[in-house]
Amino acid sequence: MEIYTIKEDILSRNNEQAKEVRAMLSDKGIFYVNLMSSPGAGKTTVLSKLIPRLSEDFRIGVIEADIDSDKDAMTIERETGAKVIQIHTSGACHMTCQMSYEALEALGTDGLDLIFLENIGNLVCPAEFDTGADMNLVLLSVPEGDDKPLKYPLMFEVANAVAVTKLDVAEIFDFSLENAVKNIKKRNDSAKIYFTSALSGDGIDELEQYIRNEAVKKIRKD
Amino acid sequence: MEIYTIKEDILSRNNEQAKEVRAMLSDKGIFYVNLMSSPGAGKTTVLSKLIPRLSEDFRIGVIEADIDSDKDAMTIERETGAKVIQIHTSGACHMTCQMSYEALEALGTDGLDLIFLENIGNLVCPAEFDTGADMNLVLLSVPEGDDKPLKYPLMFEVANAVAVTKLDVAEIFDFSLENAVKNIKKRNDSAKIYFTSALSGDGIDELEQYIRNEAVKKIRKD
Repeated sequence: MEIYTIKEDILSRNNEQAKEVRAMLSDKGIFYVNLMSSPGAGKTTVLSKLIPRLSEDFRIGVIEADIDSDKDAMTIERETGAKVIQIHTSGACHMTCQMSYEALEALGTDGLDLIFLENIGNLVCPAEFDTGADMNLVLLSVPEGDDKPLKYPLMFEVANAVAVTKLDVAEIFDFSLENAVKNIKKRNDSAKIYFTSALSGDGIDELEQYIRNEAVKKIRKD
Repeated sequence: MEIYTIKEDILSRNNEQAKEVRAMLSDKGIFYVNLMSSPGAGKTTVLSKLIPRLSEDFRIGVIEADIDSDKDAMTIERETGAKVIQIHTSGACHMTCQMSYEALEALGTDGLDLIFLENIGNLVCPAEFDTGADMNLVLLSVPEGDDKPLKYPLMFEVANAVAVTKLDVAEIFDFSLENAVKNIKKRNDSAKIYFTSALSGDGIDELEQYIRNEAVKKIRKD
């Protein structure tokens, strides 16, 4: 009982801080995307496909959050040349807004238009913490199965968009696109859904266009 | 600062209770296996392959833990006929020992020799909580990538055994068995490692034999 009270206090403070972070980024004309998924669903790969296309119009920064290793930051730097920082979470299973804020400070937001946060690979905890991002982009990889929205409700409830990844192996894994859509919509009827394959390139243009449009809407509006 | 103190208290109480649960199961001659992995790594599928083989010698119970859905319990019941219970964790990202204890009570341990707990699909949080199990069996699926032990250290540190799953797609996903072994051993030099495919049947006999031997050792010793 006490634990849940404490947790509510933490979440309430987190939500307040998230509003402040969004306002701060809004003042600077920056669009902030929180990328979440299970481990190995393809977050870094999708970023490495999106960033070169988006770089034509946006100055991009990337925050790579992991419990350990700097592999993903190295990959993004090597493959995209974007400004990148690796955050280690000291064992933590998610990014709180305070961690997100400190990461933004460490990255340095001056001169950037679009920042991606690659959250910890975890389909549960990161969904509970508003990072101050303007968009929650959730990946669901084909090998995980089309039933994941049934088992991990909150992640799909907080998603602005869901990108199904590794579409090229859908037949091997007996993944039903129809069931995936049905299960995502059960949790969140308004989330945009994209079917992508980094290998074949399927759906990457559409996903890029969606992010571009949302970013332009915010940056222009501000 | 306060948060971490609370967490330490919780973990310390959890560890005390885990000793009690292990002692209780030991008195009853029951071997208890905690199965952990990312979402969609194949926990239910591996169980549905292991249980029919192990059923020849053990009376088996299964605890299926999910945030929502009863799909896995239905699958285990249909495919193995084992005694099974579905636990919903009210959003929680892991099983504490208290939850594990309550699940064992709800399942009913009388007359059982071997109990599997299929933990929440999460490569972070479940590793922090000793469930009272005799064995932590961790799955690492090929599509997730061979680098996961680098990014999710604790899960591989607490593993007694790691079963690489979906071995049949290793070539499609450019998964290096050598790197996987190296990365697992970096975290835990004593963990047993099995390479399995539920599709081809590779490695299932070896994994079954390992669980059988460990269970017999405990049950006989008691």
